[in-house]
Amino acid sequence: MNAREEGRAPGASPSHISVVRLPHSWFILCTSRELGDKPLARTLQGTPLVLFRGEGGKPGALVDRCPHRNVPLSLGRVKQGQLECGYHGWRFDTGGQCRLIPGLVGEPEARSRCAASHATREQDGFVWVYSTPGVEPTTEPFRFPLLDAADYTTVRRVLRAPGSLHAVLENTLDVPHTAFLHGGLFRTPEKKNEIDVVVRRSADRVEAEYLGEPAPKGLVGKLLAPGGQVVQHFDRFLMPSIAQVEYRIGEKSHILVNSAMTPVSDWDTLVYAVVTVKLPVPRWLLKAAVPFVLPVGLHIFGQDVRILERQTDSIRRFGTEAYASTEIDVLGPSILRLMRAQERERTAAPPDTVHETRVRMRT
Amino acid sequence: MNAREEGRAPGASPSHISVVRLPHSWFILCTSRELGDKPLARTLQGTPLVLFRGEGGKPGALVDRCPHRNVPLSLGRVKQGQLECGYHGWRFDTGGQCRLIPGLVGEPEARSRCAASHATREQDGFVWVYSTPGVEPTTEPFRFPLLDAADYTTVRRVLRAPGSLHAVLENTLDVPHTAFLHGGLFRTPEKKNEIDVVVRRSADRVEAEYLGEPAPKGLVGKLLAPGGQVVQHFDRFLMPSIAQVEYRIGEKSHILVNSAMTPVSDWDTLVYAVVTVKLPVPRWLLKAAVPFVLPVGLHIFGQDVRILERQTDSIRRFGTEAYASTEIDVLGPSILRLMRAQERERTAAPPDTVHETRVRMRT
Amino acid sequence: MNAREEGRAPGASPSHISVVRLPHSWFILCTSRELGDKPLARTLQGTPLVLFRGEGGKPGALVDRCPHRNVPLSLGRVKQGQLECGYHGWRFDTGGQCRLIPGLVGEPEARSRCAASHATREQDGFVWVYSTPGVEPTTEPFRFPLLDAADYTTVRRVLRAPGSLHAVLENTLDVPHTAFLHGGLFRTPEKKNEIDVVVRRSADRVEAEYLGEPAPKGLVGKLLAPGGQVVQHFDRFLMPSIAQVEYRIGEKSHILVNSAMTPVSDWDTLVYAVVTVKLPVPRWLLKAAVPFVLPVGLHIFGQDVRILERQTDSIRRFGTEAYASTEIDVLGPSILRLMRAQERERTAAPPDTVHETRVRMRT
Repeated sequence: MNAREEGRAPGASPSHISVVRLPHSWFILCTSRELGDKPLARTLQGTPLVLFRGEGGKPGALVDRCPHRNVPLSLGRVKQGQLECGYHGWRFDTGGQCRLIPGLVGEPEARSRCAASHATREQDGFVWVYSTPGVEPTTEPFRFPLLDAADYTTVRRVLRAPGSLHAVLENTLDVPHTAFLHGGLFRTPEKKNEIDVVVRRSADRVEAEYLGEPAPKGLVGKLLAPGGQVVQHFDRFLMPSIAQVEYRIGEKSHILVNSAMTPVSDWDTLVYAVVTVKLPVPRWLLKAAVPFVLPVGLHIFGQDVRILERQTDSIRRFGTEAYASTEIDVLGPSILRLMRAQERERTAAPPDTVHETRVRMRT
Repeated sequence: MNAREEGRAPGASPSHISVVRLPHSWFILCTSRELGDKPLARTLQGTPLVLFRGEGGKPGALVDRCPHRNVPLSLGRVKQGQLECGYHGWRFDTGGQCRLIPGLVGEPEARSRCAASHATREQDGFVWVYSTPGVEPTTEPFRFPLLDAADYTTVRRVLRAPGSLHAVLENTLDVPHTAFLHGGLFRTPEKKNEIDVVVRRSADRVEAEYLGEPAPKGLVGKLLAPGGQVVQHFDRFLMPSIAQVEYRIGEKSHILVNSAMTPVSDWDTLVYAVVTVKLPVPRWLLKAAVPFVLPVGLHIFGQDVRILERQTDSIRRFGTEAYASTEIDVLGPSILRLMRAQERERTAAPPDTVHETRVRMRT
Repeated sequence: MNAREEGRAPGASPSHISVVRLPHSWFILCTSRELGDKPLARTLQGTPLVLFRGEGGKPGALVDRCPHRNVPLSLGRVKQGQLECGYHGWRFDTGGQCRLIPGLVGEPEARSRCAASHATREQDGFVWVYSTPGVEPTTEPFRFPLLDAADYTTVRRVLRAPGSLHAVLENTLDVPHTAFLHGGLFRTPEKKNEIDVVVRRSADRVEAEYLGEPAPKGLVGKLLAPGGQVVQHFDRFLMPSIAQVEYRIGEKSHILVNSAMTPVSDWDTLVYAVVTVKLPVPRWLLKAAVPFVLPVGLHIFGQDVRILERQTDSIRRFGTEAYASTEIDVLGPSILRLMRAQERERTAAPPDTVHETRVRMRT
């Protein structure tokens, strides 16, 4: 991608590939801890942004370009809750208003001297930024469920995936590749049972429920379902960029993997993963298990990264996508449809309606 | 060149530079030995291909992109003569037909799930691939002459030249630069004789015959014409990409250098060189001489590579070509004319006609 | 910037950024010392040029591309005042005329075989090249003043700045960033006085005179105005690319910094800096001070380079410029106006008229 494409505004994404630029959407730009006294340069959907803490510590997000001579504001410093450019010392508040121009006799404020600013929210330990600048959002960011619930343990991780937002979401929620690419860890490709998958599509989400899925085998299976209980398994995409995988095994086991994706640029996605778990073991044992389970998860993620990287290379090399989906690609095409609607600022379906279909899959 | 240009289909080459994309043409993609149990990724005229051995060991060549999610098929494995994608395990035969989709209930075969396939031939120790996918070729690949002839010795070499197919072909068959760039090794620029060159053009080739050329001087001359005999020298271009240099010195010496060129991409050419030699020396002596002659040849090739690299850089930097040819550029312009005709799927001249011209050259 | 853009002709610069390509303008391409027996490859406004010494040592400048097969002529050698291409040995004189083609029976001269040539001048120890090829200049290059004047000492330096010609010129002549970016060395941002700046614009220059500027503080101040005298300070832009900073402190101190800028390409500028100084100290002391003052100057330049580099990155990343100027940006916008006029081969103002304005600035 060249410089121009990197900086392309949301809404102008190429149509021949499953890249989207989503307006009016909340994305995590950093963790609360990452945003300290210094300005922080981040990129959202190809647009360079600078984050800093303004008055009272409230996060601000401006387009990372001084209106004066276009130097990145992230080169500068935070002074008294204002962001100071490193070239001529112009200062901006979190609303993007210019508040000081050294050397100028007269008022610094002027419309042409404003830096475009994005709405921000700080919640659940993350700084969220609204993708459309200069507007007051009508929605609020996703709330990670069960963070403070009793009996639940949470592990967080930030990962980088070299693929488009759509490719990473589909990969995260795709079952067939799990059996093949990660085979052995999850499922074994040899013994195949036919199961039913119920797919539910609505205006802001799409969900796949796997009915009668056998308890997982192998290492992961032993950890999740020690007694081989009935498994409830949901994969969900929640607009604009949450992948949610939920397992319930009996009453006592509940695993919820929320991955809030941030499209850094067309082919680069950050994954803010929050894993919330209740298991029928003492919490100290659960915490003690994390160092053993985490490497397994990272190994799986590494396999996915390698595939996503080569998929991205291939799409960029050919300059176009040519996907042949089958009925067992239960979520990918629906995710793209929802995102394309958002990109055009339309809704994919009437609110509160759910369209349900059923697919058989060997697993 | 960007990704899009790399993947551009044959027939869409830029007109302002001597780059061509030849349809309906055979090119060597690898040696027989290079294609073993594993899939082999290669590029032909900017298109990524994957080669593998199918049923009975017969080579297959598919576009290197899984029809499902566009991951390179070359990432995968060969299983029972079929190529298995590394992402979801889809399997393809050498005809590109999809034969297995793990997890799918129902038949895997479908037109939209086919990978584009190219015809292949394995002969003379090389795997040839037809440049137009999805068709049955009406021609056969070039046969290297005299490979099995008595009294002849053959040396093979694969070389990489950083120039367009046309630039590398012209360089290989160009006499004036030899006197200058490689001066000392072949000819000396000081003592100049005028000789006649007969140029013969037809629908599928162009040939230059050098009449009354003095026996070469210097190291190479001593090896080729120890008695200073009369030299017969032909330089030939054979469509689509063979450069053939032939020397006969008396009845006993015969040197035939066939260079089968493969346009990897617009500016990157592989040279499959096959040197077939009969000399009036014992064969054991000839074989013993190879380790001494080869470095000389590679030195000459290295000089050409350096020039081709800079020529390519220059053309790409200016974004266009501006060639001023003279009458002693006897083959280059004709080679381009033949290739341009093939690119447009026309013939450059009626079959079986030969157009002959005569040029004087100082050499 | 891609290859095509690099080679784009003067006059075709993008309008949405302050990049210009100036026709009919003199630029320094190298120092006299750099141009010896060998050809020298340089780039001017994106066009590759080759410089060499022709008959009598007179410099020649040709487009660095052999008309025959487009190899850079700078790969070759100078022979008897002619430049010989390294591929086929074609030879060219400083006028670009082809004078020898090895192997050719007949005359080498032909219009199509000429290399485009640029007028040159050698003066003040520099080789100047005219930016429009194939024409006889109607102007002469800038003469550096006071090079041979008694009591003056001159120091020269060639520096590279990673910014457009306009950005580097503006940076060199900009006062407000000096107080901020280089604060401490020159001025201190705390104590601010209001002063008047008189700006004079005419057809070939724009000048800012700082009235009543306090004597500089800090290290540099002590060197320039040991007695705290009244300071006369002028910043001048002289078409097409000279930045001139002049300080007079009393009768005895005179500092003249001439920076002749050469636009190598759209985002890469060479600065030929000539500092000419008269100070009320013995010349031996002045010369002895150079090793101490030079590192300070290079430190300041290093700060500017860092900013220019990030400014360039930012403009290229966004693909466009969005500058908000205030009245204390006294020279930058006027410099661009003059250069844009030259680019369109017009004049920005009637000759011999001077347009004067007055601005107040805190400094």
